[in-house]
Amino acid sequence: MSKLQELKTHLADVIHLQHAAGVLGWDQQTYMPPGGAEARAEQLATLSRLAHEMFVAETTGALLQQAAAEVDGAGYDSDEAALVRVVQHDYDLATRVPTKLVEEIARTTTLAHEVWAKARQANDFASFAPMLDKIYDLMRQQADALGYEDRMYDALLDQYEPGMKTAQVEALFAELREELVPFVAAIFERLDAVDDTPVKLNYDVDKQAEFGLKVIEQLGYDMTRGRQDKAVHPFTTEFSINDVRITTRYQEDWMPAALFGSIHEAGHAMYEQGSDPRLEGTMLAGGTSLGVHESQSRMWENLVGRSRGFWQYFYPDLQKLFPEQLGAVNLDAFYKAINAVSRSLIRVEADEVTYNLHIMLRFEMENDLLEGKLAVNDAPDYWNAKMDSYLGITPPDNGKHGVLQDVHWSSGLVGYFPTYSLGNFLSVQYWDKALADVPSIPDDIASGNFATLLDWLRANIHVHGRKYWPTELTERVTGEPIQVRSFMRYLKDKYTPIYDL
Amino acid sequence: MSKLQELKTHLADVIHLQHAAGVLGWDQQTYMPPGGAEARAEQLATLSRLAHEMFVAETTGALLQQAAAEVDGAGYDSDEAALVRVVQHDYDLATRVPTKLVEEIARTTTLAHEVWAKARQANDFASFAPMLDKIYDLMRQQADALGYEDRMYDALLDQYEPGMKTAQVEALFAELREELVPFVAAIFERLDAVDDTPVKLNYDVDKQAEFGLKVIEQLGYDMTRGRQDKAVHPFTTEFSINDVRITTRYQEDWMPAALFGSIHEAGHAMYEQGSDPRLEGTMLAGGTSLGVHESQSRMWENLVGRSRGFWQYFYPDLQKLFPEQLGAVNLDAFYKAINAVSRSLIRVEADEVTYNLHIMLRFEMENDLLEGKLAVNDAPDYWNAKMDSYLGITPPDNGKHGVLQDVHWSSGLVGYFPTYSLGNFLSVQYWDKALADVPSIPDDIASGNFATLLDWLRANIHVHGRKYWPTELTERVTGEPIQVRSFMRYLKDKYTPIYDL
Repeated sequence: MSKLQELKTHLADVIHLQHAAGVLGWDQQTYMPPGGAEARAEQLATLSRLAHEMFVAETTGALLQQAAAEVDGAGYDSDEAALVRVVQHDYDLATRVPTKLVEEIARTTTLAHEVWAKARQANDFASFAPMLDKIYDLMRQQADALGYEDRMYDALLDQYEPGMKTAQVEALFAELREELVPFVAAIFERLDAVDDTPVKLNYDVDKQAEFGLKVIEQLGYDMTRGRQDKAVHPFTTEFSINDVRITTRYQEDWMPAALFGSIHEAGHAMYEQGSDPRLEGTMLAGGTSLGVHESQSRMWENLVGRSRGFWQYFYPDLQKLFPEQLGAVNLDAFYKAINAVSRSLIRVEADEVTYNLHIMLRFEMENDLLEGKLAVNDAPDYWNAKMDSYLGITPPDNGKHGVLQDVHWSSGLVGYFPTYSLGNFLSVQYWDKALADVPSIPDDIASGNFATLLDWLRANIHVHGRKYWPTELTERVTGEPIQVRSFMRYLKDKYTPIYDL
Repeated sequence: MSKLQELKTHLADVIHLQHAAGVLGWDQQTYMPPGGAEARAEQLATLSRLAHEMFVAETTGALLQQAAAEVDGAGYDSDEAALVRVVQHDYDLATRVPTKLVEEIARTTTLAHEVWAKARQANDFASFAPMLDKIYDLMRQQADALGYEDRMYDALLDQYEPGMKTAQVEALFAELREELVPFVAAIFERLDAVDDTPVKLNYDVDKQAEFGLKVIEQLGYDMTRGRQDKAVHPFTTEFSINDVRITTRYQEDWMPAALFGSIHEAGHAMYEQGSDPRLEGTMLAGGTSLGVHESQSRMWENLVGRSRGFWQYFYPDLQKLFPEQLGAVNLDAFYKAINAVSRSLIRVEADEVTYNLHIMLRFEMENDLLEGKLAVNDAPDYWNAKMDSYLGITPPDNGKHGVLQDVHWSSGLVGYFPTYSLGNFLSVQYWDKALADVPSIPDDIASGNFATLLDWLRANIHVHGRKYWPTELTERVTGEPIQVRSFMRYLKDKYTPIYDL
């Protein structure tokens, strides 16, 4: 057996344990009876520990070295060279952080999650502040252990978006801020140009589910290799290229939640389902970064699902299903309603125009907290001042409508937020290239044919799995690095007519 | 840390891996999309292998020895002594069979299962004969590896019913044969005394599900620590004392299938849920043997669920739910319909009168095959002759209505069948003792109170988990070894009036 094959066999156990943990996590969020929670936590802890131990074992490092020698002649694009390269990267990340620190982060975030949930509910930032302080201290230690050249934040960001640099994100946001803040202010002046009450009526949940399922199947989410279930939080999870599942949640009084949530998750799922079958069972299967993943979910959710063409095709069906709610609402009014912009304080409820301003705020705050430029106790004032500056709105509390609204920090996820915006920017960049290559895509969508877009995405993005880092992939696909210009142009082209600016 | 504690910690990983495999197995049978099958097989293989490797590791043996010394003073009934005793037993079983043989059995049965499924469908015994021959050869090797004193079959039986001997089962069946064969013949003369058409009408599946769920909840199956889902084959599976799940399947044209199937599985599940909470997460949690397990499922299914008192309470509800089917059927007629005896060729469809004759046949055949008294090629004639002798019926084929009907042999499960009959015998023995201790139980059932029976079962059987071997448990509970007398008396008392003998 070659050393590469030995490495693959060794890693197969790790992958199987990780996927088993995935199944247990999926079950926990969907069907597990409440009594099962305690044992489940222990089962998951064991699976994660064993997978981690096997992965960071010296065997892995030794096999990697030997396999690297074997694939030395293979080209950069070969599966073999890519496997060694990507696993080496993961191995370095996993082995740099001392076990003691990993354990301390796990212990602290478990505790912090509970403290956060209570503080958020009580709008009581002060009770969470000491935990946040502790978490940022641990994040600094983690960044030091991971290593970085320029900015401490680089080390954390790199875990979620390999190769992306803090300075680059700052530059993207600087350009965005300049153009987007005044654009949002202009829309806010004209909010009454769009009426979104039609989508806020009462919509039967079973019918919502029926319609949503029909849509995502038609988009190309392969249900023989996936399924959709209900869960408190929507997510995508995969245990194989051929078993990629999504969850959704239904709101009776806000139809877009489940529908666009389902399309969003189906976008993630189609990316996972689209890895080259050759990559099945290896660490090259799946998405290459959170940002690229988000580019897929957002493209299907927004560029496809919130487009006029999409609803030219689907709206008659939806009207038939909900004649009371939509019988008297014409396509144009419906299109505007699902694209309504609002003065939302809450990121997860934000529309596609304002969404990235919420992210920019968090990115800046994470950096300033991490680098000690901002004291934890000053975080609420900092938050509220930026909300006012970027969005012209002020949170009524320092809890669930403000600085405590997100779960990320209490979970030790610092450096994660920017990937949402990177995904939004990339979604338009990739979309533009797809349309340049296949100009019929918008017309195809308007006639219910989503295969031309999906085929392009598969051939240009999905098929590669993790073979290329996100930066490489974007250059390969679009011929340039990530930029914000296309995204801003898309927003202006779309929303200028909607709000008659 | 004491050595006992070290042992527990070491075993916890094994248990978590086994339970994780359980979750993956449950998912495979309930919700997994078809595409997931291939990866799932590999995930399960990895989990099983890792659990097995950890369990049979020398560490386990060494810790067992040291822990045994520590618990030397503890009484036989202590959790500590029981843990060491039971784990030592499992360890001995697991380490006696060479890995090579385990792997060969796994490989052969995987292949045999496919060959069997085709042969069964085509009623073609000859195509399965070589696999059956090979399997019995492997079973002989397994028995030799496990070791036995008297009969080769003892070694195989002991895996499923620790402490039970072949000679003892033969004696039980001899007594049963003497009394049951003429009793069945007498009933077969009078089959027209019972009309079971009322339960063979069309029953809406959703209503069946609603009623079945209501019943098993009221029996005492704790749904905060369990759940019921649909699957092709009904089964019970557990990942914790507090997460014990069952599955069922619905037949539109035979209402008893799902209802009594659900009650049966709920009986298994309540046994698993009833282990002392102190035993959670140890190898003492759960049922002590397949026979004792079956005594619980069969008691709830037959002694409770097919009793007149049970239906005095539930029948009005069922009539209300299915007025077309049952409005004109009185309680007595319904009671007879669900207790109808038939000339079934199929074990899994057999009523409680004839069921054990199906088992006896299989037990005799397994022994004769194992000991070389019967050649594999003669198995169909042997089967058919016994069917005629015990039940007075002759299979029309040597496939799905005859010798190929069960999945067990192709799966390498030899020695398993008798536990079904042992369970039936024990169900009546335990029931008699429960009624002697709590005479109100039949009246309680007739008024919809199942707690007195469940409490008795919990206190006398469930709570112990695996602390006592089945033989010990039966002596403790009933004051005598397993016997067939009570079961035969129960059958005669119940069916003499039903068939007006």
